[in-house]
Amino acid sequence: MNGNKTEILRILKSSGSKPVSGQEIGSKLGITRAMVWKYIKEIKKDGYEIQSSPKIGYTLKSSPDMLYPEQIKIGLETSLLGKEIVYYDEVESTNSIAKELAGKYPEGTIVIAETQKKGRGRMGSDWLSLPGGIWFSVILKPSIPLEYVAKMTLVAGLAVTKAMRDLGVDARIKWPNDVLINGKKVCGILTEVDAEVEQVEHVILGIGINANVRLNEFREDIKENSTSIEAELGEPIDRISFIKDLLFQLEQEYIKFKTQQFSNVVSEWISLSDTIGKKVTVTTPTKITEGKAVGITDRGALLILTDNNVKEEIIAGRCRYIK
Amino acid sequence: MNGNKTEILRILKSSGSKPVSGQEIGSKLGITRAMVWKYIKEIKKDGYEIQSSPKIGYTLKSSPDMLYPEQIKIGLETSLLGKEIVYYDEVESTNSIAKELAGKYPEGTIVIAETQKKGRGRMGSDWLSLPGGIWFSVILKPSIPLEYVAKMTLVAGLAVTKAMRDLGVDARIKWPNDVLINGKKVCGILTEVDAEVEQVEHVILGIGINANVRLNEFREDIKENSTSIEAELGEPIDRISFIKDLLFQLEQEYIKFKTQQFSNVVSEWISLSDTIGKKVTVTTPTKITEGKAVGITDRGALLILTDNNVKEEIIAGRCRYIK
Repeated sequence: MNGNKTEILRILKSSGSKPVSGQEIGSKLGITRAMVWKYIKEIKKDGYEIQSSPKIGYTLKSSPDMLYPEQIKIGLETSLLGKEIVYYDEVESTNSIAKELAGKYPEGTIVIAETQKKGRGRMGSDWLSLPGGIWFSVILKPSIPLEYVAKMTLVAGLAVTKAMRDLGVDARIKWPNDVLINGKKVCGILTEVDAEVEQVEHVILGIGINANVRLNEFREDIKENSTSIEAELGEPIDRISFIKDLLFQLEQEYIKFKTQQFSNVVSEWISLSDTIGKKVTVTTPTKITEGKAVGITDRGALLILTDNNVKEEIIAGRCRYIK
Repeated sequence: MNGNKTEILRILKSSGSKPVSGQEIGSKLGITRAMVWKYIKEIKKDGYEIQSSPKIGYTLKSSPDMLYPEQIKIGLETSLLGKEIVYYDEVESTNSIAKELAGKYPEGTIVIAETQKKGRGRMGSDWLSLPGGIWFSVILKPSIPLEYVAKMTLVAGLAVTKAMRDLGVDARIKWPNDVLINGKKVCGILTEVDAEVEQVEHVILGIGINANVRLNEFREDIKENSTSIEAELGEPIDRISFIKDLLFQLEQEYIKFKTQQFSNVVSEWISLSDTIGKKVTVTTPTKITEGKAVGITDRGALLILTDNNVKEEIIAGRCRYIK
């Protein structure tokens, strides 16, 4: 959607139930009333309901339940994240597209899609992207060495958890990259990186959230351990407002990560963790570790106290709780 | 060069000064003598000098001083590295091409070029690729977590150093990614990675070697600290033989890295190190550390004992010796 259409929507939204005349809109944007009318027709085609009252003006009655960039941008309180939003109705995977775009697009660019045909989970597993969910990827270009990248998964998990808690649900982080509500998975995060050892070129944070997903839509094999925000709240959320808050929280945490001691992120992460204190089995490509999750180190690793009283640090892996 | 041409060259090379008849070659490859003659003509066009004696056969008199894949493949003693070789006369950067090819090409693929127009050094610096050098990149796909990638720079440095020492020069490793002879830089290694935190997708090892480079060709600003194998030996090397040995050494070290304790790599690395024991300043995107280089940790970090007697571990950075 071009700038003029976004601006017209912005004007109508901020005016609420009070109609705005075509002349007023036109003079604000420096275009004719005929052009305003042309744009209004296009905006209506996108699914917005706009009432036109002759000699009075236009009123926005409703917006479509779509993740259109202009809807996200209006009222967005970030200075970096989401300034550029690449929108798709359907993609194979937002992370794959973000990886392709990362070289040409600025830091903070969002790739968002209504549905993913081949959403990707960790280590090549598939990720089910059901209708009503939120599937997006963020392109970040922090000036950090490669070894700091694992911390960014923690940063993202913390931001998602805080944004969900703002909605009133008891979201908690399961190490390293899931968010749970009442013990069930509501969000997964996939961190991918392109880097030299010394310096990251870009990090892609892929965030998939079961927002307004119906429980009976989940596949049988994941049904028992999955939930959605809608199911937990008992009503659907306003996805656009939620994304705006999430981008804001993510930007705040990202700035903290870049400018403060990482121990600040760690202590907040631990306070919202579902994992610390639990008995776990963690599987990595090179080993399996079993023991009690007792903390997060300053380099972002999970600290496990094994049954032999040995402390092991693990940067990333598949984590299972032992009952 | 296609398989038949490579095979014909292989037959001629192994026959040495003894001529091989077109009929013998044809029957070995299952092609007619006329086809053999067609291939011989093509091979001559590539710069090989082949003597044809009527009724006696063909003799290979000399090979061009080019890094043609078929020259590298003949007698190559690896089982993984260099089975697939992508050759260019001139490229922008072999690492950039290797990154593009990595998704489609098998592990062990080599991208090699006679010259690079935009050779890349660490952190976006340029890398001068003079005539007579060796510029190539290796695509590797180890099943390792992201945090192991820094170790691979050490593995590559060790392999290059050993291959050079096989030539009789006193090559030593400057942490993290340079090889020196008599204190002057003869090789740089650029390690790049595409990965999830948990598992690497692929690692590109870019290796640039001043093999038969003339000292007076170096740019003024790097002249003082640069050298070439030719200059140190007093005569040019056979680049093809050297590459074959280097690929063999690199494969051996890579297998050790994947199957043995990393401390084995570390102890050999330290024995060939130019850095351990020296006073250094190491600069990373986030800090500057000064002190004495005292060791390499099991995760591949340089251990520095600062002037305040604090031990600091650094995974990668720009290292300067303090006199």
